[in-house]
Amino acid sequence: MSSSKMTIGNYLLRRLKSLGIDIIFGVPGDYNLPFLDQIEDFGAIQWGNNCNELNASYAADGYARIRGIGALVTTFGVGELSAMNGIAGSYAEMVPVVHIVGTPPTASQASGAILHHTLGNGDFRVFANMYKEITFAQANLTKTNAVDEIDRVLTQCLLKGRPVYIGLALDLSDYEINVDPSSIKPLNLSITHNPKLEHQAALENILECVKKVERIVVIVDACAIRHDMMKTVLRFIERTQLPIYVTPMAKGGINENHPQFCGVFAGNCSTERVQKEVYDADLILSIGSMNSDFNTGGFTYRLSQKKTIEFHTYHTKIFYAIYDKIDMRQLLPDVIENWPNDIIRPYNGKPYEVEKPILDPKHEHEIIHEYFWHKLPDFIPENSIVIAETGTSEFGIFNMRAPRGVTFLTQILWGSIGYSVGAALGAALAGKDENRRVFVLVGDGSFQLVCQEVSAMLRFKTNIVIILLNNDGYTIEKLIHGPDRAYNNIQMWRYHKSFEYFGDGLKQNREQAVTGFAGMVKSREEFEKAMTQVSKEIDKIHFVEVVMPAMDAPKSLVLTIEGANEYKKRERETQE
Amino acid sequence: MSSSKMTIGNYLLRRLKSLGIDIIFGVPGDYNLPFLDQIEDFGAIQWGNNCNELNASYAADGYARIRGIGALVTTFGVGELSAMNGIAGSYAEMVPVVHIVGTPPTASQASGAILHHTLGNGDFRVFANMYKEITFAQANLTKTNAVDEIDRVLTQCLLKGRPVYIGLALDLSDYEINVDPSSIKPLNLSITHNPKLEHQAALENILECVKKVERIVVIVDACAIRHDMMKTVLRFIERTQLPIYVTPMAKGGINENHPQFCGVFAGNCSTERVQKEVYDADLILSIGSMNSDFNTGGFTYRLSQKKTIEFHTYHTKIFYAIYDKIDMRQLLPDVIENWPNDIIRPYNGKPYEVEKPILDPKHEHEIIHEYFWHKLPDFIPENSIVIAETGTSEFGIFNMRAPRGVTFLTQILWGSIGYSVGAALGAALAGKDENRRVFVLVGDGSFQLVCQEVSAMLRFKTNIVIILLNNDGYTIEKLIHGPDRAYNNIQMWRYHKSFEYFGDGLKQNREQAVTGFAGMVKSREEFEKAMTQVSKEIDKIHFVEVVMPAMDAPKSLVLTIEGANEYKKRERETQE
Repeated sequence: MSSSKMTIGNYLLRRLKSLGIDIIFGVPGDYNLPFLDQIEDFGAIQWGNNCNELNASYAADGYARIRGIGALVTTFGVGELSAMNGIAGSYAEMVPVVHIVGTPPTASQASGAILHHTLGNGDFRVFANMYKEITFAQANLTKTNAVDEIDRVLTQCLLKGRPVYIGLALDLSDYEINVDPSSIKPLNLSITHNPKLEHQAALENILECVKKVERIVVIVDACAIRHDMMKTVLRFIERTQLPIYVTPMAKGGINENHPQFCGVFAGNCSTERVQKEVYDADLILSIGSMNSDFNTGGFTYRLSQKKTIEFHTYHTKIFYAIYDKIDMRQLLPDVIENWPNDIIRPYNGKPYEVEKPILDPKHEHEIIHEYFWHKLPDFIPENSIVIAETGTSEFGIFNMRAPRGVTFLTQILWGSIGYSVGAALGAALAGKDENRRVFVLVGDGSFQLVCQEVSAMLRFKTNIVIILLNNDGYTIEKLIHGPDRAYNNIQMWRYHKSFEYFGDGLKQNREQAVTGFAGMVKSREEFEKAMTQVSKEIDKIHFVEVVMPAMDAPKSLVLTIEGANEYKKRERETQE
Repeated sequence: MSSSKMTIGNYLLRRLKSLGIDIIFGVPGDYNLPFLDQIEDFGAIQWGNNCNELNASYAADGYARIRGIGALVTTFGVGELSAMNGIAGSYAEMVPVVHIVGTPPTASQASGAILHHTLGNGDFRVFANMYKEITFAQANLTKTNAVDEIDRVLTQCLLKGRPVYIGLALDLSDYEINVDPSSIKPLNLSITHNPKLEHQAALENILECVKKVERIVVIVDACAIRHDMMKTVLRFIERTQLPIYVTPMAKGGINENHPQFCGVFAGNCSTERVQKEVYDADLILSIGSMNSDFNTGGFTYRLSQKKTIEFHTYHTKIFYAIYDKIDMRQLLPDVIENWPNDIIRPYNGKPYEVEKPILDPKHEHEIIHEYFWHKLPDFIPENSIVIAETGTSEFGIFNMRAPRGVTFLTQILWGSIGYSVGAALGAALAGKDENRRVFVLVGDGSFQLVCQEVSAMLRFKTNIVIILLNNDGYTIEKLIHGPDRAYNNIQMWRYHKSFEYFGDGLKQNREQAVTGFAGMVKSREEFEKAMTQVSKEIDKIHFVEVVMPAMDAPKSLVLTIEGANEYKKRERETQE
């Protein structure tokens, strides 16, 4: 190959590598095999063979939440459709994931051949069309458009923080294009400038407002984290000395030992102290809010619009007035710069402390939620990654103490059960170089959807700590509806035998993680003993099956469901 | 409730029950729980709790292939998207499946609330729009349209033999509508009449043609089975006394002991005798053909259009002439009626016999494919259901002897790996009343995608025989591309411990299948001993892990890949 030429597949790999991707998840399929050859030969990117495509999409999402971008490869039709739930989740939760689909040969597509993995109607665009609904940008690579289209969709992926779709035909991944590898320029990732006059007007309006009031609080939410704003937010609170709260979706975005950190705000699910402080404020500065049901304690936010300023990436809202296209990524630095010196008072609030658990002496030994979420942080080292499954775990972590530097991953908006297991694999591989250990908290019901990915965790020699909360069925659903219904009960498995089943029992897998604790704990004593072993054996993978009473649940979950039911009732009444 | 009223949910259940549905597959989710209550209270339909939605869609497909229609329930967004691959498979392969999706409350949809399981943009139609691409008809039930829409889509589902989509909002399943349960009329499932003149012209043309030739053969394919034509086909061959061949997708459609049955035709993959007979014919009557790559030995059919008459549901093709809208369901009975008496010669061909295996004495004890597919039928009783996974198994059954009444299920067009496991659950429950036992043949690679459904097999007390072909990775892909590539190797599991892991080990599941053989067999002697136990213990579920040499494959698979590669080469040459 001459020095001014490279293949389409290699161009794509070069780009992905330069954006921080060291592993591409996915499942082999005959239409993507030549591209997988290229990954293997490229050398600088690992192939992350998953057990199925849904799990691969979860892994790519988990990886992206740690690294800033993730990628997966599937095969045409069967593979890409299996990944749809995961990609839609990345879209909803604003996670930049690149989905590369190996498509049939261009000649077969042109002739409309009835190939396997098609609907048999000669239409090769069906699945790409479906993907338009759940990805921000799409490309169908050709010999002539490949470079431009790869650059366009990768740029969109990062700027918008949403998944993108790339169709790569079987015969095109090793097609040579005229690109000199040494002359590839970095992607242009600068954001559009805010319209000048509107920007200035919004800024002045905000600065006027903040001078007129006494008590100002800051609430940080999902979009601030997604758009990589947390350093700016930190500068903002340190300059202004204001108290800061996070929503459930922003949990972990601010170090909870920071002197100005005041807790998690989620309407009725927040502690009484947090609710009082927020509701008593004269002005709320809301950064990157995402007011979904489970992020607002079941729509129990009672924040008054007339005392709220909202910073978003697509607009700024000051009370009832919208400033269109005023992006917080440009506005917030200017607010910091121009914050009036004379209103700054050094922060002197009490340091934040998690409320003490209220432990019912009737359940002295049982592992109930009120005990569990208070005890768990003792075993989680700084800079860990904690992944909480949709369901009881997602609510359990709301008011849990977070050690310094801990990143929390949950799917509070999309809420696909099973997500945590695939995401744990992705996050573990993303955090490996920095020795960030992953703790994944998953219920028995959710684990059943995706159990096979324990196999990949073993194969990639991860040191993930899987904590499976066995409460005998879909507890969150029982609390929402039908506690005594048969459909909320599930088959009991031997969960803690996962390592044996998915791998090491046979000793045939030469490359495999070393396993540590793998058992069931039924009392607090057993739990603490197991977790002590977990803490000591940091290079091993562990599986702690925690047996909990069936209908016990975190307080925040019970409160959110109460809130959501109230909301539904109000909504019905409004309609009738 | 007054006698002239019933709920929307109950109306739907009444309809499904009347069409032959005794079980609805799916996964609970908070938006479908009220409908699940109704299923439980309805009593006449069982709830088929699956481990995940993809598996549920496979189960509904497997059920439909045996019973004529299947159904599943998922929840909005996360659930329905996870089932997309399965539903697209039903669409491609023409299987009537009803997909009911529990959607958020109508009031929340109207107000555009940011609920969990949405994209956070207030758009509640996104996923239903995606489903338009892979279902034949869609309905979004309302208080006023429910009855008409349910009837419309169910009628389409059966007439077109394709999946349909029904959105049922959380608050509507128990909404009362004015329908007197005693006055519900059966659905009108009669097909449109063929245009009279064209029908007559096609019929006369066919009758003229058959008089002029000597050797006529019949090839039956997928669409004849899907459109419930096999009784008509049988009448046809018995009246005409013609030799009959089936394609891989129609395998099992004709009893292989029928005196006129002559074998499986799939181009180069057929036996030499079959190829000679078919290619030597003067006229080919092709019924319900589906000329996909894997159904034609990799496009190695060399049937001349100028001696082929094709019967389809949407048209009839006589050599090069198309008779539009001439449906074989009306035409074929008329052809039988009017077949010229004077050309009928009693069939006197040799009875069909499977070719003897050619066993390499070097592999005297090993379980190689050439041995396996010849031996297997000895252990399969009449009227069983044999499900072959995409990959080696699908090709293994091509030329395998089929005991009387055996139904074969494979996904030859769609080819989603893992399908066989979910489909086995569905088929087993569909065939239970008639004591039809299911044998599922699945490779290790495919099993990893869907392993958890063994849990549901146990829970529903099935007597399925799982035969797992352990050849250490994705053998079919290795044969297609990259035999030495790392991506085609997978983690080794303890497959034969599945029953312990997914259930009975703990003895906590009161309701569970009794397990029989569960182990690994490495020699022919061990295999035959295990299968003898399987044959004796007919009420138990069994798991036979068959260890095979890694790169051994059925001859038909090797030939199909060679054919497909030749085709790709020709296609490229044509393009250049």
